[in-house]
Amino acid sequence: MAMQAAFLAGFSQLAAQPSRDCAVAVAPTRVAVAAVGSAKVGARVGLKAGIAAPAPAAGRGVRFRASLIEPDGGQLVDLVAPEEGGRRAALRREAAELPHRLRLGRVDKEWVHVLSEGWASPLQGFMREHEFLQTLHFNAIRGQDGRMVNMSVPIVLSVGDAQRRAILADGATRVALVDERDRPIAVLSDIEIYKHNKEERIARTWGTTAPGLPYVEEAITNAGDWLIGGDLEIIEPIKYNDGLDQYRLSPAQLREEFARRNADAVFAFQLRNPVHNGHALLMTDTRKRLLEMGYKNPVLLLHPLGGFTKADDVPLSWRMKQHEKVLEEGVLNPESTVVAIFPSPMHYAGPTEVQWHAKARINAGANFYIVGRDPAGMSHPTEKRDLYDADHGKKVLSMAPGLERLNILPFKVAAYDTKQKKMDFFDPSRKDDFLFISGTKMRTLAKNRESPPDGFMCPGGWKVLVEYYDSLVPSEGSSKLREPIAA
Amino acid sequence: MAMQAAFLAGFSQLAAQPSRDCAVAVAPTRVAVAAVGSAKVGARVGLKAGIAAPAPAAGRGVRFRASLIEPDGGQLVDLVAPEEGGRRAALRREAAELPHRLRLGRVDKEWVHVLSEGWASPLQGFMREHEFLQTLHFNAIRGQDGRMVNMSVPIVLSVGDAQRRAILADGATRVALVDERDRPIAVLSDIEIYKHNKEERIARTWGTTAPGLPYVEEAITNAGDWLIGGDLEIIEPIKYNDGLDQYRLSPAQLREEFARRNADAVFAFQLRNPVHNGHALLMTDTRKRLLEMGYKNPVLLLHPLGGFTKADDVPLSWRMKQHEKVLEEGVLNPESTVVAIFPSPMHYAGPTEVQWHAKARINAGANFYIVGRDPAGMSHPTEKRDLYDADHGKKVLSMAPGLERLNILPFKVAAYDTKQKKMDFFDPSRKDDFLFISGTKMRTLAKNRESPPDGFMCPGGWKVLVEYYDSLVPSEGSSKLREPIAA
Repeated sequence: MAMQAAFLAGFSQLAAQPSRDCAVAVAPTRVAVAAVGSAKVGARVGLKAGIAAPAPAAGRGVRFRASLIEPDGGQLVDLVAPEEGGRRAALRREAAELPHRLRLGRVDKEWVHVLSEGWASPLQGFMREHEFLQTLHFNAIRGQDGRMVNMSVPIVLSVGDAQRRAILADGATRVALVDERDRPIAVLSDIEIYKHNKEERIARTWGTTAPGLPYVEEAITNAGDWLIGGDLEIIEPIKYNDGLDQYRLSPAQLREEFARRNADAVFAFQLRNPVHNGHALLMTDTRKRLLEMGYKNPVLLLHPLGGFTKADDVPLSWRMKQHEKVLEEGVLNPESTVVAIFPSPMHYAGPTEVQWHAKARINAGANFYIVGRDPAGMSHPTEKRDLYDADHGKKVLSMAPGLERLNILPFKVAAYDTKQKKMDFFDPSRKDDFLFISGTKMRTLAKNRESPPDGFMCPGGWKVLVEYYDSLVPSEGSSKLREPIAA
Repeated sequence: MAMQAAFLAGFSQLAAQPSRDCAVAVAPTRVAVAAVGSAKVGARVGLKAGIAAPAPAAGRGVRFRASLIEPDGGQLVDLVAPEEGGRRAALRREAAELPHRLRLGRVDKEWVHVLSEGWASPLQGFMREHEFLQTLHFNAIRGQDGRMVNMSVPIVLSVGDAQRRAILADGATRVALVDERDRPIAVLSDIEIYKHNKEERIARTWGTTAPGLPYVEEAITNAGDWLIGGDLEIIEPIKYNDGLDQYRLSPAQLREEFARRNADAVFAFQLRNPVHNGHALLMTDTRKRLLEMGYKNPVLLLHPLGGFTKADDVPLSWRMKQHEKVLEEGVLNPESTVVAIFPSPMHYAGPTEVQWHAKARINAGANFYIVGRDPAGMSHPTEKRDLYDADHGKKVLSMAPGLERLNILPFKVAAYDTKQKKMDFFDPSRKDDFLFISGTKMRTLAKNRESPPDGFMCPGGWKVLVEYYDSLVPSEGSSKLREPIAA
């Protein structure tokens, strides 16, 4: 597969280089949020101005591994039963025999995947009530060492009333989690069952209770009235068998790859949309800035979200095809780019969710996070406006407890420069030269097989989009396609 | 006035005592939340078991001041212009001449009072956007020293669209705040105006957007669509001239009083309801426990909330009369009790608001906080259930960022023991002997001039309640009186 080839070319080329001295301690300094409305913001929250240059190479002699940012809680959580020692077989047997079995929905299974690989480190399983409450009220959880780690979206599993009563009646402490065909996936132990107050969960997570929130309709409205937390042990790594599993690198695998490439800075770019040349400009510009600051080998983690998305988002498989073209056609440099899938489902919870997106990337080794306009945002489901203030995401992210170690890189706004006929950073002094191409506009063009202006997106990538919309049955054309491209 | 006499008797008696060596460093240790559902809670959030005894008296010789808990941010904020040096007159002149004047509503004025005396230390005025966002998302604000202080309810001032445009057009940086008769109260400077997203504010503060929340109807629904933050300077101390101003002790005055009494522990009891003997039992029991732990002079801060309350709560003036009787009739000991009014308006925002109630008392010098069932809770405005889980308040409080220094004392449940004919701690082993007298039941009795069971409340206190309900016009009898007594 060409895409894989392009990525692996990137991987192998650097791996073949002679070892260099690039052991560098990455300074855990937070970036000032430039141009975030009032100058007060930066000043008041005590953000440091400028980006700290990396510390000079430490120690004597040649070191081959860059020191990546530490995972939350100090250790990357891995909840998959080890192959050695018969643990998997034993767990599988136990799961098959446990009297209480909870069937996982699509989103539940995605969370099992997320938890299993330690994206939510130090979480060891579905949240118990004290973790759920801290998430809702503080967007952060106090660890056993007393320090706060960021945790802004509830990672919870629901259970219905009848099943709860049965579990309590038995005094069971362990339950099996099974897939849609009743195959055991994991065991949840030392369980705790507590009330699922859906209204309060929704209000505190989304800042609205308006009907029509995609994640709510998919995973909350019809969920059980109780939540069940506990420690999770997964029988074997989660696979999807959709031809994309090779891109589902775990945080441990990503860290290995960054270390192998001797990355001394990792900057993550979360997205759930096709990559246009504005995005690409931003990513290459970020690398340039990091090089100017003294980093020797900043590596981009281009990290499309792979879990649940709303119906009018471009599906993962098509997005991956599109990303493949972007690398094939040289818009992004495969040598300094790692493309992988982030397995989380999407909440569309704006400033609350962007913290989760950033926190998970710390666990994967990223110490820089690019944040744009209205991250994880969408239109208000019932009013004619965006659900979130477009600047709140980066403001909240820059102040979030538990993310102090992460350097936040705010997006510069890119738009189509009609004079230069390319995507460029918006220049307010000649604003009439710039064209903002919204997600709606882009999709309308692609659906009508029209071409965007030259230089908006690489031709191969655009072709993938046109093919995708061609593949849709006509009736889908009327679905709501209003939200702008967030990332 | 008898009430004042009783309280002042308490004050003066101790003040007349010879100075004693009771300089004691209060150990900043958090109390384990006993019996909070699952045993997990205490264990997981790293709460320490038991209550730390006070450290032995430090230093040589006799010291006369107990060391009270430090205010948030290290220093108690005082925003009232000093009398000396002509600052008040100058500020009054400036306020009279400023072209932009914002008229304060009742609740706004209460917040000016709260801010002016440093209850919200280290806040220096109405919140700017970065403080508002941190409050909504994290219930805590990062101070200039990088540490988090707790701040769970927005303290904000709204402004309408026309006035905002006028202020921006002028480039004004200072505005006058005036009362309902246009008299200047304060100047807000270095202002910042930002969007007032009411839906998001309500959802994140209350965990619901259901219509009928009292504070929302009083202070948000008809408020302006913008918020204006800035540094506040108040012309002179806020007074109400309602005969109760002498009980409105500022945090500084309370600290002075605690120090004068040589208190080595201060335990705060927030309430907005009449005191019955169950409350009194709890307060005297708390003092007993603190003495057993080694404190020599624990002082109770009986601290009724004096700001906005919902229509069916007993008004402040009647509550103060009732509290007076409780002290007069010896139910609480005036020698170890300070009664004062907490000037904040009431949100009825349960677990979110209880943090504010606790945090403000740290600033007033309290290092122990008593928390009961469903603090700051009420009935759901549109559904037949309580708005909040009755245990969430104390759980959230015990985990809240910025409150680590405060010792949380969870309520034991008190009920009427029909065998002993008195209020006592509920004993589940003989649960049929106990009668729970709800707020609704209590009010129904008082309204019908019936008597509660002997020993439920001191006779003088009960008489005040009967008088209050007698004083209501009959039509009010049909108002919704459903919520239980929270404190």
